[in-house]
Amino acid sequence: MMLRPIGILGGMGPEATSLLQRKLVEAVPASDDRDHIPLLIDMNPQVPSRIAHLIEGAGEDPGPTLAAMARRLQDFGALALAMPCNTAHHYAKAITDAVDIPLLNMVELTADHATKAIGSGGCVGMLASPAMRRTRLIETALRVRGLSVVWPADDDPMLAAIRKIKIDGPCVEARETLRAASKELAAAGADLQCVACSEFSLIADSVAAEANAIDTIDLLVRAMIEFSQTGHLGETE
Amino acid sequence: MMLRPIGILGGMGPEATSLLQRKLVEAVPASDDRDHIPLLIDMNPQVPSRIAHLIEGAGEDPGPTLAAMARRLQDFGALALAMPCNTAHHYAKAITDAVDIPLLNMVELTADHATKAIGSGGCVGMLASPAMRRTRLIETALRVRGLSVVWPADDDPMLAAIRKIKIDGPCVEARETLRAASKELAAAGADLQCVACSEFSLIADSVAAEANAIDTIDLLVRAMIEFSQTGHLGETE
Repeated sequence: MMLRPIGILGGMGPEATSLLQRKLVEAVPASDDRDHIPLLIDMNPQVPSRIAHLIEGAGEDPGPTLAAMARRLQDFGALALAMPCNTAHHYAKAITDAVDIPLLNMVELTADHATKAIGSGGCVGMLASPAMRRTRLIETALRVRGLSVVWPADDDPMLAAIRKIKIDGPCVEARETLRAASKELAAAGADLQCVACSEFSLIADSVAAEANAIDTIDLLVRAMIEFSQTGHLGETE
Repeated sequence: MMLRPIGILGGMGPEATSLLQRKLVEAVPASDDRDHIPLLIDMNPQVPSRIAHLIEGAGEDPGPTLAAMARRLQDFGALALAMPCNTAHHYAKAITDAVDIPLLNMVELTADHATKAIGSGGCVGMLASPAMRRTRLIETALRVRGLSVVWPADDDPMLAAIRKIKIDGPCVEARETLRAASKELAAAGADLQCVACSEFSLIADSVAAEANAIDTIDLLVRAMIEFSQTGHLGETE
């Protein structure tokens, strides 16, 4: 089978990119190396901070850096792009404007999945970065599909948990924060909860037991495998 | 600190490349994403089989594919190259001939480390692919430094264990094979044992308790961090 190489805008952070790679390897039934998806990865931990730009209103715009990475990946031979960082999808237009190949857009994949999973009128709970909330990116994608959105009331513990995972990796404090937020969303009536932050993906098993949760990175993995194997960009399940 | 990007000739197999990335992330004390080493990764699981070419004498020469990958990584902006596959170092000359940037050669790093660790006259036990043995690559590198080499008597279980890890990931049978081989090398008088196959790196904690073992991928990690941070290509410790 001819497999199409996919370019990864990576390093935001490095552990999220590694997690995507691990999930891709696990999701492909392989009898030899050559069954696995070819990837071209720009692991660039020096992309200007999305959180600094979006929340603190300080620091460099990451858009031009991401656009340059996308162009290089296209030149390198990538036939589609993927970006294992939900917040960075705020800069999706800068990326797609820079290239002729498609971006497997994790936010759009998530909104499509939610529509199918709980139907129009449903309520989606978000376990994501406050920077993601600030962009209203997922909100917009869900609302045009007739779904509503609920977030944890307090942003600060979520941001602190993300920063702690970036420094220490998965840790008990972050797990407790995620579980409490997930319980809060379930109580607020979320029909589906989206783990939509690559750091939280590392501890996605810590959502509340009563949550009906999906991980956006798993939706990206499915879309990548389908594109690589078939060239198809449509629905991912 | 300006960090130099390193190009990875990866995908041989994908899990070994992921392991290298994970070890790099763990080895860098980071307070933010931007402290991590920038990598440009050509994750190409479709490189022609090194084992088929070297052992079975069948199949395509991987050299030209690796040379093309190296050139693309240089064009992409890599300032040095690394390859988390010991056996593929048989093709190191095809790679270095194709580019103007250095290859952080895992075999040479291993031979240098062994010389320092046990001194000239010492005996190094190899836990590696029979394809690696066939190339006499590490043997040559060690012998010019005055060290001798010992291998497990029977190649077949080692090859079977590598193939099993490529299909199933780390598994009990492969761990038992590695432990038995490591006991055999200790009994044969190895002063140092080298885990020199990226598949065995995934189960390196299964060497015999009495073994004085190092993992070649850890030597590569140290050399990559030093190069990225300082531009220095010299001794790695």
